[in-house]
Formats: sequence, structure tokens, C-alpha cells
Amino acid sequence: MSGPHALPDLSRLVRPESVVIVGASDKPGGLGTRTVHNLLRASDFDGRTFLVNPRRDEIDGHPCHPDIESLPIAPDVAVIAIPAPGVLDALERCAAKGIAFAIVLTSGFGEVGDEGRAQQERMRRIAADTGMRIYGPNCPGLTNLADRIGMTFSPAFADDKRTGPIGIATQGGGLGRNLVQAAERGAGAALWASLGNAADLDVADFVHHMAGDDGITVIATLLEGVRDGARLMAAFGAAAEAGKPVVALKVGRSEYGVRAIQSHTAALAGSAAVNSAVFAQYGVVEVDDTDELMDVAWLLARAAPPPRTRVAVFGGSGGAAAMAADMVGAAGLELAVFEPATTAALREALPDFAAVGNPVDITAASISEPGLMDRTLGLVAADPNVDLVLLPIPLDYGAHSARGSEVMAAVQKQTATPLLPVWMSDRRGPGFQVLADAGFCSPRSLDKAVLAVRRWADHGRWRAESRAPEPLLLAPSTTEPLPPVRTEPEAKAWLAGAGIAVPEGKVAATADEARTAARELGGRLVLKVVSPDLPHKSDIGGVLVGVEGPDAAAAAWEQIVAAASPHGSVEGVLVERMAPDGVEMLVGVHRDPVYGHLITVGLGGVHVELFGDVQRRLLPLDPQTAREMVDGLRSRPLLDGLRGAPPHDVDALVDLLLAVSDLVTKHAADIGELDLNPVRVLPSGVIVLDALVVP
Amino acid sequence: MSGPHALPDLSRLVRPESVVIVGASDKPGGLGTRTVHNLLRASDFDGRTFLVNPRRDEIDGHPCHPDIESLPIAPDVAVIAIPAPGVLDALERCAAKGIAFAIVLTSGFGEVGDEGRAQQERMRRIAADTGMRIYGPNCPGLTNLADRIGMTFSPAFADDKRTGPIGIATQGGGLGRNLVQAAERGAGAALWASLGNAADLDVADFVHHMAGDDGITVIATLLEGVRDGARLMAAFGAAAEAGKPVVALKVGRSEYGVRAIQSHTAALAGSAAVNSAVFAQYGVVEVDDTDELMDVAWLLARAAPPPRTRVAVFGGSGGAAAMAADMVGAAGLELAVFEPATTAALREALPDFAAVGNPVDITAASISEPGLMDRTLGLVAADPNVDLVLLPIPLDYGAHSARGSEVMAAVQKQTATPLLPVWMSDRRGPGFQVLADAGFCSPRSLDKAVLAVRRWADHGRWRAESRAPEPLLLAPSTTEPLPPVRTEPEAKAWLAGAGIAVPEGKVAATADEARTAARELGGRLVLKVVSPDLPHKSDIGGVLVGVEGPDAAAAAWEQIVAAASPHGSVEGVLVERMAPDGVEMLVGVHRDPVYGHLITVGLGGVHVELFGDVQRRLLPLDPQTAREMVDGLRSRPLLDGLRGAPPHDVDALVDLLLAVSDLVTKHAADIGELDLNPVRVLPSGVIVLDALVVP
Repeated sequence: MSGPHALPDLSRLVRPESVVIVGASDKPGGLGTRTVHNLLRASDFDGRTFLVNPRRDEIDGHPCHPDIESLPIAPDVAVIAIPAPGVLDALERCAAKGIAFAIVLTSGFGEVGDEGRAQQERMRRIAADTGMRIYGPNCPGLTNLADRIGMTFSPAFADDKRTGPIGIATQGGGLGRNLVQAAERGAGAALWASLGNAADLDVADFVHHMAGDDGITVIATLLEGVRDGARLMAAFGAAAEAGKPVVALKVGRSEYGVRAIQSHTAALAGSAAVNSAVFAQYGVVEVDDTDELMDVAWLLARAAPPPRTRVAVFGGSGGAAAMAADMVGAAGLELAVFEPATTAALREALPDFAAVGNPVDITAASISEPGLMDRTLGLVAADPNVDLVLLPIPLDYGAHSARGSEVMAAVQKQTATPLLPVWMSDRRGPGFQVLADAGFCSPRSLDKAVLAVRRWADHGRWRAESRAPEPLLLAPSTTEPLPPVRTEPEAKAWLAGAGIAVPEGKVAATADEARTAARELGGRLVLKVVSPDLPHKSDIGGVLVGVEGPDAAAAAWEQIVAAASPHGSVEGVLVERMAPDGVEMLVGVHRDPVYGHLITVGLGGVHVELFGDVQRRLLPLDPQTAREMVDGLRSRPLLDGLRGAPPHDVDALVDLLLAVSDLVTKHAADIGELDLNPVRVLPSGVIVLDALVVP
Repeated sequence: MSGPHALPDLSRLVRPESVVIVGASDKPGGLGTRTVHNLLRASDFDGRTFLVNPRRDEIDGHPCHPDIESLPIAPDVAVIAIPAPGVLDALERCAAKGIAFAIVLTSGFGEVGDEGRAQQERMRRIAADTGMRIYGPNCPGLTNLADRIGMTFSPAFADDKRTGPIGIATQGGGLGRNLVQAAERGAGAALWASLGNAADLDVADFVHHMAGDDGITVIATLLEGVRDGARLMAAFGAAAEAGKPVVALKVGRSEYGVRAIQSHTAALAGSAAVNSAVFAQYGVVEVDDTDELMDVAWLLARAAPPPRTRVAVFGGSGGAAAMAADMVGAAGLELAVFEPATTAALREALPDFAAVGNPVDITAASISEPGLMDRTLGLVAADPNVDLVLLPIPLDYGAHSARGSEVMAAVQKQTATPLLPVWMSDRRGPGFQVLADAGFCSPRSLDKAVLAVRRWADHGRWRAESRAPEPLLLAPSTTEPLPPVRTEPEAKAWLAGAGIAVPEGKVAATADEARTAARELGGRLVLKVVSPDLPHKSDIGGVLVGVEGPDAAAAAWEQIVAAASPHGSVEGVLVERMAPDGVEMLVGVHRDPVYGHLITVGLGGVHVELFGDVQRRLLPLDPQTAREMVDGLRSRPLLDGLRGAPPHDVDALVDLLLAVSDLVTKHAADIGELDLNPVRVLPSGVIVLDALVVP
């Protein structure tokens, strides 16, 4: 990959052959001490390690170098663990030495006021000028769990024993470690990058690295701000290309969150609605909390979701099984219908009072007869109509529960159908540990489990139906100049030139011209002031509807000009024939500062305000995506004609979205915002009733 | 309390002075064996215990009686632990002996087919005929944790050591034990009733008991079916009267759930929307999963929620604090604004780079300087603008985290402001245990914590503003007979008689009468077929709108009669003057089989179908509740006039709801359903455009 959004090769940073710790120490509790301990003692690092400390000859039996210059080679990675005042100097020396990567653990930069921000900007420039890539500052370091290389000061690294195929990329260290500690319930990670202030390298670089890392199959990321949408999208695109799902938690949904993020990372949070739209378009699975991030990442790593997901519920508590089935339905998921042979075999194997439909309730009889689960869980998992088995475990019954966990582990070895046990109790007896050790990651609650399945299933549908887009933002400068579109008639003429239907109309410079226009157009008319200064024409009396006949049109012209003149320059009055009845929608485009141009469609009028029923996508659109937008609206049935109303022309609306996409793509550099509101969808065709373009 | 909904005094069942175990045993693993062990060894029961077993002289050193008849007294409670075939006989003997309560542990009744259901019905009749109240069958028994009396076979009872002020009433035993095991994270219970098939006593009886039990301050209940809505509402009302919050999880939100419940408990699940409406009206806090039930119950037990809740967020991880603040905002909760003195004191006590607004981020500096939290958490909790302190703990740092938990425990002792620590990590180190032992119940995830605070806050508002209603269902038979309301004109005449506005109109028996009516009414008219057989008039061409003049009215009459006659008997055509423009709403009443009459209001037309924006309440309404209904609609701003539209007459809509409530209350026995749809809300007044009454 090249160009402005090139993402670097980080393999030597992640798996270095040589590392130097600058600021190595053995002062108890010190940053450098913990870092030395983690790399030399708690890691399985078999590369060369160098320590730099001008005041010591050796630390923990390893020789010390007085400075970076005296190192015999240029190591792949320098880990900087010295106090803030010396960091920039050390980085310059590392770069001069030819070191490829520096990890700056030290705090006291962008997070502590103007002076710190200035220092961090200098750090960024060192990276840009020298080509040495910088990780951090103000971070716990880089933790390669799969190869057990801890370039980190974290005292918890020694306990990070369980590994797995999840790649974790975070900004803050506290939340990142929260994700890593999900290993306790079975969700192991291969690599954890916690980028702190991200002066140079950021989450996008690691998402991109993980997309190409063979030991990683799923990427979990926690984002506060997004500085460079194009690079993040490129990284998401690389992950999609590699077939590796990305699961993301984006902080910044509320004003409080946006403000807290600005104070915490000095990063812009961006609009949550836009982030979600972009994530969805790249197939990024968005979640709401850190435990959900690991629930979904683990499930996606366990098995690729099919295009359509049918769930089996299996348990020994009728109440828990019923609740699980209830949640499956409430989440819009589908319960599998078993093959008759499965039902018959279950009937044969289970007591009469057990439920052999779906949910399967093997009842508390399994306590006195432990073989019941052995004989039946495999039958359910093997049913060809079952894509996932949800196993609610409501209580801890000690050894009995452990036995159940062992059966689940044994059955999972025999089947490709993923089992999802849910340890619902707060008592974590031996059965919980058996599950974790067998590689199951139990969600913390039943509803979180069902939510994980829902997201897994949705990603399966995305994989089957969609592909990550090529966003317009990546090349917005290559576009054609826009014709004049200052006023509504100009904007409509431009749209009409692109084949988009607008009402028949004329601009009347005088009342007499309005009279003539009315005569020529005939029928019921709408008259609207023409002015580049008055985008909200109705509010100032600049619009009259239902005007009939030449005299009424002339009078309306006078009235509109009189009403509008005090508010702005008036260039005439647009006289248009009123459109037939239909469903009012809105179509809008805006240029997001992070991600570039997005298009929005929704039911028009008050519905947007009251119900927020809109769909958003990055431009440019393809036909499939345009149709998905319309189909994704909750108000979609209205277009089909509810309660005996005629069906409206959905195809024409889809075509309009595509035409708008083409137009904006052609003139992207000149268009900040485009509002077509309302757009009326007719039984045949669609017509744009008002149009506003903002550069 | 008396009358058909009388709820019994259960204090002798919960705290008996004497108990007999019928079917006492010492056969390893047997039901009777575990029950004997629990009551004699694992309990602190200081009353008299009797054992009945005809084949043994003594068990575990206690003498056995050969039968119930030979007991020296009639014990308060008989625990029945014999096989199903002998249970009914044993119950009859217990009743004959004068025993007040029987707990039937045995399975094999209503849950196992027609024969079992018949046996259970006989059991119910024994209770009804003799006055001995029966608990169960098919249940784990009754667990009095506060007094440590285990009338249960559960092998987990020995571990149920932590107690607290929560009363738990459930149907299924598996989910019930899940709730009890929340004690592991600090949420202790005083009493757990798990009623199994509930042949006689049910959840309502225990909610009512708990409302009067001094050791219980909050009631947590998990419901599958609701057999008797009136008794449940009476119990909820008693709890509200006693000032004890009820938290409820109701299974049965989806078709899958409804079906599974029917198969599991043979109970009707009822409509989820209706259940939720009734629960909300009684101030019952509804939750979505078992862990949430205990989160909210614990929080309500810890502190009564104020009318308005302002949250402080306090932590040592900037990322976690930002995420918590974000979730607080996204949940519609309010962050507290600190007093200037608080901010100044925090500024003084914390490092420069700490955040002293809200969220407060004391930063990782607290790791090296443990005193930071001691000096600052109390300041935040003491701020008069803070009603609750949320403490996100993203990771387990071993001893450091334990120290933090100890500070939280110490600060909580000094303040009435509830602290809510959230242990977010899957690694449960010593710090987690410190929290639980200090009486904190950490929610399992940050989003669940914020959800708990939201529900706590909502309940605070309910307490301040509302009171539990007196539902109409309790006395539906005392109502006046309804006049004839078979057709729209009859229904409208009835409404008009009650002062409800309907359009001016006449029924035309002939085309000529339609002509006359049009002349008298004038203006634009609507004509509608009059027929008791055709409730959906529009679908069969029975309605024409915008008719003007006598000739057009006569023609419309002919057209309507021709169109409608093939579909049903035609009694004429209603000729009405068209109503002015306004906002179309619907007002409906239906008689729910479980809870009685409920009233519904919503935006009319397609909005109900697309967005489900309705509010429901039990009848009768009071003025405050009627206004809350209207204010609770998402589409409420439409009535105020969005985008320069005129405001509509909300007061008149509220008055209409009250008038409908009065009307239905007066004639409740005769009204199954009442549909006023549409109802048009005008700038001044409200007018009912169509009306349908179903007996």
C-alpha cells in the first residue's frame, strides 16, 4: 500500500530480533525496572536485549551501555522508559542510530497541557523527519502475547498467560488491560497494542498490521477519538479484504462522553451516528461495552458466522431455557427447527417430561443421571439446521456443574457447530474454570450472550451480502467544477441536467411574469422566493402553496416579495406546478470532517426529528448499497403502501440515491452539503421538491 | 385484606415454630435426605422438628414418626418429600391434622402431561377445601436466609451464607438460585421463595408477604406466567404502600418465549407490552436479565433514589472514566456539577494532570500514591449536588486494586451518598472480594451499572410523582348497562352524550335524505356506510370523503350502498361535516384477560404500525396519569407544533382520555374493546372521527 494513507509494516516492531531498553533500572517499583523484568524475566524473548543506563555497569546480570550511540548494532526496537524531559533527545539519538521503532512509555506529553502538547508535536515531527516510527507516549507498551514478548511496564504482564487468536488495539491502557484480562474467562489474545497518546503510530496502523498477521483471526479495537478517518477506513478495508472481522467499541455517543474524551485524549470524538454508519459499511461489528467486545471477538474467532443463523437452546433448567428462547426471539434471531430424526433421537434418550423441541430442556434429571447430556448435546449440535448452540447455565452446583462443562468441552471437540455456554451465576465454581480452560469464553450474562450471537449472525449476513466500500474521501480533489447552484432554481437546473426530476417551473422576475408563468403551467401552483441568502424560505413567508390562476399568482408574487425583501436579496419568485401526492422523504449529503462525504435518506417531515429514522452511507454508492439504505428504514413499509395505500416507486428512489451519489462524486471538492428535502416518492417516479447546495 | 383478592399471612410459613419433614430419609443423595440435612444441620432452626418415615425409628439421631397422625402436635409447616403417588394422600392427612402450610418438593405434577395436571388440580382443591395453604409442587422449597431456616432439598443451601435485605420470589428454581448466588458479589437476600408449579400459593402471595416483612426492604421477582393479574396487582400495591420497591423480570417478550413458557409451566405468558405498562404504573422496576434484577434490587436497598439523580463519575483510568461519562449521557442521566469548593479541594489534592471536573480522573498516579483516593473520593461523595458516585474499575492490579476497594468501603461508611463500584475486569482478584465483603454489589459490566443507575433514578422520579393505581378489574361487575352502540352513529351518539365532541352529522336512509343532510350541513362532507357488520368500512368502499353539495351527496349515497351491500347489512349512510385539520391520534381501550381494562393513546395513522409509539395505562385514569400518557409519547412534540406548525390542544386530549376512562369505568362489564381512531386534535379542542365498540 502506498500514497497518503499508506500503513507501515510493523512486523519488526511486533516480533523484534533485538530490543534496547533506554532507562533500564532496578530501582524497586520504577518504570524501567518493571520493563526490564517483563522483557528479561517474564518474556520468552530469544532475541538480543540491550540495556542503556549511564550510571550502571549491569542490571540483573545484564551489561549496561552508557548511551544509545555505544550500542553494537541498531536494535529493531527501542523502549523508552526515562523521565519526560529526556525523551525527545533520546528519540533523536535512536533515530540517528538507525533504530526502526521506538516505544515511549513515559507520560507527561499531550495529556498535560500546552507545553506537553508542544513536546508531543515535536515527537511527531521526529517520526516524520527521520522515518523512525514512534509508539506512545503515555502508554503501557506493546504486549506480544502469542510470542510472549512484553515490551511493557505493566506489573500484570506476568499473569497474562492465556493466549488466543484475538488482536487487541486500544488507545487507553486501562480499558485495554480490561480486554486482555478477559483471558480469565477464556478469551485469549495474540497481541495487545495500547497506543496511549498515539503521537505517530495509531490504532489504524495496528488494525492494518493485524489484518496481515497470521496468528490473528479477529481484531478487537477500542477507540476514543478518530484523527484520520481515511487511514482507519483503509485499515478496516484491509481487514475486510483479509476476511478478518473487526469488532469495535467507540466511545463518544453522548455530549458527556465527547467532552470527557476531549479532556482525556485531546482527540475529536466525531459524530457517533457517522461513526456507526461507517463502521457498519465496513462490516465492523460495533459493541457497547468492553465485555461485549471480547464476547463477539471470541465468538467470531471460534467460528465464521453463516449467511443465516439458526440457534438451538439447550439446558437443564426449564426456566433458563425458556428465558434464553425468549431473548433469542426478542433479539430478532431465529430458533432452529430440528430434523425429525433429531427430535426422535432426543425423545428416545430423554425422560418423558423433558422438552425435545427447541429449546431443549433435559431437566434437573441430568443431576441424578449425568449421562443425559452426553447422549443428547451432540445430537443437537449435529443437526444440519443448527448453526449455534446456546447453553444457559443458571446456577453453580459445584461438581455437577463441572461435569456439565466437561461434556460441553468434549462435544465441542466433535463438532464444527459452535457451542456457547453461558455461565449465568455469580458463583464461579470449578465448572466455570473447566469452560475457560477448554477455550470457551462465557459471556457474563444471558442477554449479553444473545447479543453476541445477534452480532455474530449480523456479521455473517454482512459477509454474505456486502463488501467494504472505497470511500470518496480518498480522492476528493480530482473532481469537476460545480456550475452555479446558489439558489433553488439553479440547484434544480443542475439536478435536472443530471436526469433528476424536479417540478416544472419558471422564475418570475415581476408579478406579470408570474401571471404568464401561471397561465403556461396551469393547475395548482407553488410560489417560492428566489434568493441566495434565504435557505429557510418558509419561515419568513417566502412560500405560498395551492395558488390557482394568473391573478392569484401575481398577487402571490407581490406578497412573497414584500415578505422576503426585508430578510435578504430577492432575485425573483419561482413558480412551480404542484407535484402529485406521494410519500415525502429527504435525501441529504454532507462532508464529514473525519470520513468525507456521507449520504442520508429518511422519511421526511417531522419523522426525522421524532423518530430519527434515517440510513447513512459513505459515498460513492453502488446499487446494492443504495437499495440496502431504503430497505433499512423502519418506515420502509410506508413506501410499499400501508393500509391499502398504493405502492410507491422504490426503484426510482434508489435510482435517485445513485444519481445523487454520481453527482456529488463528480463535484466532491465543491460540495459541503446537499439537501433534497422534501423528495416526493410517487406511485411512479420520484420528484425533488426543494434543493439546497452548500459549498 | 379481604375479598376475592385476599392475600394470606405467611409469617408462620416463613418463620415456623415447628416443621415436619414427611419422607425424611438418610439414603445418600435422596430428596428427603438432603432436606433433613438442610433443616437439621445446615440451618439455625431452633423450633421443633419432626420426621415422618414409617420404615425407620430414627434418622441422624432424630426419632421418626410412622405417620402424620401420630405427631404430638400439628406443626406449622409440613415439608413433603415423598414420591408423587403418595403426595395427595399425605396432603389430606396434613390438612386433617390441622397443619397450616405444606411445602411440596416432589415433581411429577402439572409439568408432566394431562395426568399430572389433573393431580395438581386435586392438590389445588385440597388447599381450597381445607384452608391448608400449599407451596409447590415441583420446587426446591422455601429458603429463609435471614433466619437461616432451609426448608429445601437444595445441595447449595449450605453455601448460602451472605444475607441481606432483598426478598426474592420466583417461579422456576434454576433462575431463582441464580439470583440467590448473586450473594457472591455482595447482593444478599433475606428470603427466597421458589414456587415451582404454584398449585396454590404463588409469587403474588410472597410479594405481599415481603411487603410486610421488616427484614426485607426491596423485592426481586422473576415471573414466567401471570395467572391472576388482580392478585399480583394487589401485591404490587401493598409493596408500593409499604414503600418497598419491586424489581421484576418477566419472561415472555417474544413468540419463542411465550411458547417455551407454555411448555415449561403451562401458564399464559400474557402480552409483554401490557405487562410492562401495568408494571410501570405500579412503580415496578422492570429489567431484562437476572443479573440486572440483583443490580437494581441491591442499589435500591442501599439507598432510596431521590426525585432527581445527579451522578458523579470517579476513577483512576481516564479512558474508563470517559466511557462511564459517555454511558451516563447516552442513558439520559445527568452528570452532577460540583460546588466550586469541591473542585477547588480536588485541584488542591490531585496532580496537575488529573481531571477535577466530572468525570474525576485521579489518574494512574494513584498507583504510586495510594493516598490520592482517600483524600478525594470523600470530597466528591460529600458534594451536595452528587446523588450517586459511579466508580469504574477497569482492571485488576492485585494488591493495589484491593487497596482501592478498601478506600471505597471506608468512604461509604462516612457518607449517605451511595457509591457504586464497578469491577469491570474478568480477573477477580482480592479487590473484588473486598468489595463484596464490604456489602457492595458490583454490576458485571459498566453498561449494566449505568442501566441500574438509570432504573434507580427512574424509580426515584416515580416515587416522587406517582402512586400505584386502583385497577378497574377489581370490581368490573358493578357497572351500568351500556346503551346500543352497534354502529358508528350509535357509538358516536353515546360519546356525544358524555360530552365528547364528534362531527356534526345525520344518518341518511335514502339518497334523498343524503341530499337534504348535505344541504343542512353545508361545506365538505364525508359519507360512511352504517352497518353493524362492517367495522372496516374503508376497505370495502364504504367511505367517501370531500363530497360537496346535495347532488354529489346523493350520488355518494348510491355509490356507498352499492359497494357495501354485498358485504353486510346496510342501515343507511352517515353524512358528516369534515373536521378541520389537526394531528391524528388514536385512543383505544381493551380488556386484557389478565389485568382488566387498559387504555392506549398514540399518534394515529401509520405511526403506530411503524414506530409503535403508544402509551398504555390501567383504567381508571386520574388527571396526572392521563397527562403522563400524552407527555410520554415520542411524538409529543408534534402536538406542540413542530417547524412552525400551530400548537394543538393537549389539554383537550387529556380531557378526552379522562372522559373515555369515566365512560368505560361506568360500563366496564359490557365493553371489551373501544376504538376511537382517528381522533383529531385541533388547535382548539379534539374531535372523535370514528368510533367502534366491541362488547
